[in-house]
Amino acid sequence: MKAFVPSHITGFFAAKRTADLQESGSIGAGLALDLGATTIVEKAASTEIFLNGQICEAPVSRFVVNQLARSPVRVETKLYMPLGSGFGASGAGALGCAYALNSLFDLGLTANQAAAVAHAAEVASGTGLGDVVAQNTGGLVIRLKAGAPGIGKIDRIPTLPLKIDCVVRGPISTKKVLSDPGAMKKINRAGKSAVKELVARPTFNEFMRLSRRFTSQISLASSWAMDAIEAVEAAGGMASMIMLGDAVFSIGATEALSEFGTVISTTISQRGASLD
Amino acid sequence: MKAFVPSHITGFFAAKRTADLQESGSIGAGLALDLGATTIVEKAASTEIFLNGQICEAPVSRFVVNQLARSPVRVETKLYMPLGSGFGASGAGALGCAYALNSLFDLGLTANQAAAVAHAAEVASGTGLGDVVAQNTGGLVIRLKAGAPGIGKIDRIPTLPLKIDCVVRGPISTKKVLSDPGAMKKINRAGKSAVKELVARPTFNEFMRLSRRFTSQISLASSWAMDAIEAVEAAGGMASMIMLGDAVFSIGATEALSEFGTVISTTISQRGASLD
Repeated sequence: MKAFVPSHITGFFAAKRTADLQESGSIGAGLALDLGATTIVEKAASTEIFLNGQICEAPVSRFVVNQLARSPVRVETKLYMPLGSGFGASGAGALGCAYALNSLFDLGLTANQAAAVAHAAEVASGTGLGDVVAQNTGGLVIRLKAGAPGIGKIDRIPTLPLKIDCVVRGPISTKKVLSDPGAMKKINRAGKSAVKELVARPTFNEFMRLSRRFTSQISLASSWAMDAIEAVEAAGGMASMIMLGDAVFSIGATEALSEFGTVISTTISQRGASLD
Repeated sequence: MKAFVPSHITGFFAAKRTADLQESGSIGAGLALDLGATTIVEKAASTEIFLNGQICEAPVSRFVVNQLARSPVRVETKLYMPLGSGFGASGAGALGCAYALNSLFDLGLTANQAAAVAHAAEVASGTGLGDVVAQNTGGLVIRLKAGAPGIGKIDRIPTLPLKIDCVVRGPISTKKVLSDPGAMKKINRAGKSAVKELVARPTFNEFMRLSRRFTSQISLASSWAMDAIEAVEAAGGMASMIMLGDAVFSIGATEALSEFGTVISTTISQRGASLD
């Protein structure tokens, strides 16, 4: 059984954390990208998780396996996205696991029910709060009310499958940011206001503008990232920081961005998680 | 501006009609199929709608144009599905119009808001009650609560992009069935119970089994359609009537089905309506 899950980069967000994993999550907006992950599961003598060919702990995927697998499984996730830099890699692995295990063991879960397990895995691990919800749907997703798929509320902004460029210098610890009350206060205030404004004018350009403003407001971008963003803007494009990575996404100025690292180009994904 | 919309065949449903077009709709379940429609809109001197190259009235699409176009437009819809036989052709045209006009005139509608206009157009025209909601999402869609996208509630059942075969003999008037109180009483009772059972066990096979039972219960299938369904079953496949058309969909027995007409083969669509 094989599942495909798009990557997801967040432009802005505000966190909601409660004692209930399903009720926790975030509001915000981001792009599902065709640069995705595939996950294959099969019954095995003992449970092993492989990430890009390497056996590893993969705590988020393991949470899903522990919840859903009825017997030991071999899980093989291939990531076509950078790891740990805001592309929702852990969510992609976990969500792929949930879809594939649902099918392998004929569990009879709906898409929302399967995705809710992956969402809980992310929240419990502190690795993400909104990627799974968006990855389950695809496109440019607005997360209007926090919570797992089926509990939270989302909508999409229709867009062309636009080409999105990214440069990545390295990870930022999502866990560390999410557990810093000072940073979170700033993030939540800026994120809530951005969601409100995007709802009033839901277009791709407005998403980019609000993401850029959020980046300025929360002051987490490295000077390298700020330089890259400004270089893209000077060349007539739009850019913002990927939440949360030392990474930048942009549109319309590939050459300017390429001064700051190897450009990863992909397109906005028009489909969400699905069996392949 | 160009939009793609999958076709949609309903396996079973129960109607809900109120004075409010957005609150009206249906619960039920059906398959979005890759056999879709593309719609191109562009500004023009006067409004004209073309369906497969022929200028025509297209009342459902026209409803959407009247609501959303800010100046006259030329609309060109190409249907890669049969017309009037339960494939959601009118919904596909209307939904494609809504997405494309939203983009052409930079209206700033979300996916749900654009789709809600197409849903209202269908309900007002009496041509459908649930296609647009499912076409907006893609996949095997359960409609849990009736209403336009963003008002109703749906979920998906994750499935492989399975090959689905169809044979079509001709149309059944959706309008006529929906306005027949005797037929609707039977349909609503059988449809509600099928949704309840599918929620308890949401799998593809259960969807097929419940669709087949619904076909028997509502007694709208022609003897030709019943013969085709039984021939597929005798050959080890699963089949049911397309709601509402003199048409049958099936899986697993293409050859048996081909005795009843030209087989149209397609796959379950993993994406919903999107700009192309």
